[in-house]
Amino acid sequence: MATASGKYKRTNTNGMQHQPLDVAIVGGGLVGSLLALHLGKKGHEVNLYEYREDIRTAELVIGRSINLALSARGRRALAEVGLEEALLDHGIPMSGRMLHDVHGNRKIVPYDANTNQCIYSVGRKHLNEVLLNAAEKFPNIHLHFNHKLVSANLDEGNLSMVDPQTKEVKNARADLIVGCDGAYSAVRKEIVKRPRYDFSQTYIEHGYLELCIPPNANGEFAMPHNYLHIWPRGQFMMIALPNQDRTWTVTLFMPFTQFHSITDQEKLLEFFRQYFPDAIELIGRERLIKDFFKTKPQSLVMIKCRPYHVGSKSLIIGDAAHAMVPFYGQGMNAGFEDCSVLTELFNKYGNDLTRILPEFSEQRWEDAHAICDLAMYNYIEVKMRLCYDMRDLVTKRSYLLRKKLDELLFWLLPNTWVPLYNSVSFSHMRYSKCIANRAWQDKILTRVLYGASFASIAGIGALCYRHVTMGHLERLSSAILSTFQLLKSSASV
Amino acid sequence: MATASGKYKRTNTNGMQHQPLDVAIVGGGLVGSLLALHLGKKGHEVNLYEYREDIRTAELVIGRSINLALSARGRRALAEVGLEEALLDHGIPMSGRMLHDVHGNRKIVPYDANTNQCIYSVGRKHLNEVLLNAAEKFPNIHLHFNHKLVSANLDEGNLSMVDPQTKEVKNARADLIVGCDGAYSAVRKEIVKRPRYDFSQTYIEHGYLELCIPPNANGEFAMPHNYLHIWPRGQFMMIALPNQDRTWTVTLFMPFTQFHSITDQEKLLEFFRQYFPDAIELIGRERLIKDFFKTKPQSLVMIKCRPYHVGSKSLIIGDAAHAMVPFYGQGMNAGFEDCSVLTELFNKYGNDLTRILPEFSEQRWEDAHAICDLAMYNYIEVKMRLCYDMRDLVTKRSYLLRKKLDELLFWLLPNTWVPLYNSVSFSHMRYSKCIANRAWQDKILTRVLYGASFASIAGIGALCYRHVTMGHLERLSSAILSTFQLLKSSASV
Repeated sequence: MATASGKYKRTNTNGMQHQPLDVAIVGGGLVGSLLALHLGKKGHEVNLYEYREDIRTAELVIGRSINLALSARGRRALAEVGLEEALLDHGIPMSGRMLHDVHGNRKIVPYDANTNQCIYSVGRKHLNEVLLNAAEKFPNIHLHFNHKLVSANLDEGNLSMVDPQTKEVKNARADLIVGCDGAYSAVRKEIVKRPRYDFSQTYIEHGYLELCIPPNANGEFAMPHNYLHIWPRGQFMMIALPNQDRTWTVTLFMPFTQFHSITDQEKLLEFFRQYFPDAIELIGRERLIKDFFKTKPQSLVMIKCRPYHVGSKSLIIGDAAHAMVPFYGQGMNAGFEDCSVLTELFNKYGNDLTRILPEFSEQRWEDAHAICDLAMYNYIEVKMRLCYDMRDLVTKRSYLLRKKLDELLFWLLPNTWVPLYNSVSFSHMRYSKCIANRAWQDKILTRVLYGASFASIAGIGALCYRHVTMGHLERLSSAILSTFQLLKSSASV
Repeated sequence: MATASGKYKRTNTNGMQHQPLDVAIVGGGLVGSLLALHLGKKGHEVNLYEYREDIRTAELVIGRSINLALSARGRRALAEVGLEEALLDHGIPMSGRMLHDVHGNRKIVPYDANTNQCIYSVGRKHLNEVLLNAAEKFPNIHLHFNHKLVSANLDEGNLSMVDPQTKEVKNARADLIVGCDGAYSAVRKEIVKRPRYDFSQTYIEHGYLELCIPPNANGEFAMPHNYLHIWPRGQFMMIALPNQDRTWTVTLFMPFTQFHSITDQEKLLEFFRQYFPDAIELIGRERLIKDFFKTKPQSLVMIKCRPYHVGSKSLIIGDAAHAMVPFYGQGMNAGFEDCSVLTELFNKYGNDLTRILPEFSEQRWEDAHAICDLAMYNYIEVKMRLCYDMRDLVTKRSYLLRKKLDELLFWLLPNTWVPLYNSVSFSHMRYSKCIANRAWQDKILTRVLYGASFASIAGIGALCYRHVTMGHLERLSSAILSTFQLLKSSASV
């Protein structure tokens, strides 16, 4: 047995006295190691089991996205264990999108034109290392690498693992098992077998492949580095996030069929010449060819399920509970927010897992499904939307009108009229509320637009009849006034 | 090996010459036995493997819905193997819903007020028997009961089965394996393991439990029998379908929590007295108590997945491919329609499975998802909707207005403006088209209503200004005219 701490009262760093729990965390990635810190800080006896070797001493993991966008939700969860500043210092702030068209022209679309909030490009490996290093400092957090879960008894809290190299079997028991083992979670595989369990896995036709832009001849970033660079091309797109070493991680999203159609160097260069001519120079011809054919495109999956707990001894969080496609930059942030939500519930209910776990499931599934859906919706919409942004569209007036109106209202009512992207990325509003809020905004805007068209038609009609009096003008201004009152009052809904 | 027919040219009943295929059908329920007939008729060598014993000699299967509503899609698939008339003769036509309120008052809502089309209540056992008897007459259809699938190699077309009683292992090989083995399909379990496979299972909080209303003292139906009887009660509901023996199969749909709260006779009677007082008498006090506590409520699941095929040797259809909640009465009909679609593709492509199977998946998933969603939507909506119908709602004007308008337009434009229920139940329009059609109708109606309100406001305004001239009236009538032209022209979209 890997865990066997005697049950004694301990004063945790929050000053609360309780019986510490034996917690087994399956998966030592970003969410698993952050959760270890959250629970370790509360004084629990935490054993973290990771099936890979220690990432701090390992080679770079191939095929997993190597940098990520950290925003408000992730930052708060890091702040709760005192690591926000350290990570922001190392991250690279991105204040907006820089769009590249096929001619190499660039255009900036800020994330938050009003208050200049940023998202941060952070390296997965660095982030994971910082979290593991911090965890290791706790005497009550124990890290176990090369522990691959083979089976689990979720009712009893028993785990059976194996060392992938030595094949040695290791057993463990815990008061609480938390699966933080990603989209293909082994813990979830046990949960799915339960009766009446809701589960879905949805793959998209797009895969992704990572490329790299090296520093320029002067050793500097090859592009302005405080932006997330995007090459939107309708059916596919490419993005680039800056790294501390002045390189860029480039991700090409494209239907698998299109990946498969690029079978040799010539076809690859032809494709890039047609769609991403400026990227050939940035990446470098030789490097592009080498990197493109080095790895296979990876698939993108959305996982939704519920509930997240089984009985009072098991739970899944992060990608294990809600993997999403990466088009809203919220995967890691949502997983980190799970840790905040769980910590809040521990604060509320002490260590009563019979109340904490069901409430976590109940409270969290709606938000998790909401952000999964939003990311999927963005997968479809983002390509079109960015194409419009890029072209300063004249033909898509309705989109631009909506956008301008949105910006105007956000400026007029900064606390009331928060656009969707901002509420998701720069606030802690529940994801489901962000979407409800957007639906409410759509409704109001539709009404306002209908009202405006009606008012103008009525106005024109009245003018035609040459019967305009001061009374009409008064009524018109009072109508505008009540619209704004409606906006303010409904905002609290 | 259970199959080994030599490959020889055969002239099938369609007169087409081809190499017959060895087809293994897994599951001898309604869809499996109908598919055997469809493919047997085309001259293929069909082996049907059913894990239960022969339903024709077995006791009634407990816990599965014992009668079903047959509508247009199911009828056509039966007609294609010459069985429609036989089954309609045995089925009981239901021309509408008969709603029961808590005071025992009844109200009829016809399915199709214009052309009086019916759906038919048919017994599952009878239907299955008719299909199996017909299949048995084909020399090239072979029925194998007590064959439970253990594993399958879907690329090779190999099946491994076991006799649940004797434990004897039976192997088979086929050119095509078709899984018709229901919502918990063993064939699908093999398919789900494939890379990038989309799959979802969604349980609803409601379960169902079957009760029975016996014939009355005169041996007659205890209620008017040409209706589907419904007791809509908001959070739960009860329905009853007539059987040939003058009994009624009653199904109570209710959240599991509510089922669990009824722990003894007294609570059961209290519950029925409050919500279904007229049903106590119809069912009989003793029988109600006996039947209610005899079986556990069954769960209701929606299964969506895609694609339905693997390579060129395996396919799933029916509930195995798209199980749905029973609130649109389309589960069996959709499964039967799968047989029609598949037969059409065999007609189109001869026996070229490399074209038939991908096209089946591609063509069918959208319709299957559509009807699954519609049934789920109805689960939420139907209760409310029927409550409105029942109460002749004054408070829900928008619903009634929409309904009346719908009926009026259907009457004016019977080929163009088909309401959703009618297109689903009484036409062969693709399910996805039924929904698109409804969305189009909603859009038109919204426009018409907006137009009407605008016209009336403008009209009132004009009256106020006392400037109404013949010119205005002309313009008004031309506006009405163009609205109808718009309706007719958009209908072909």
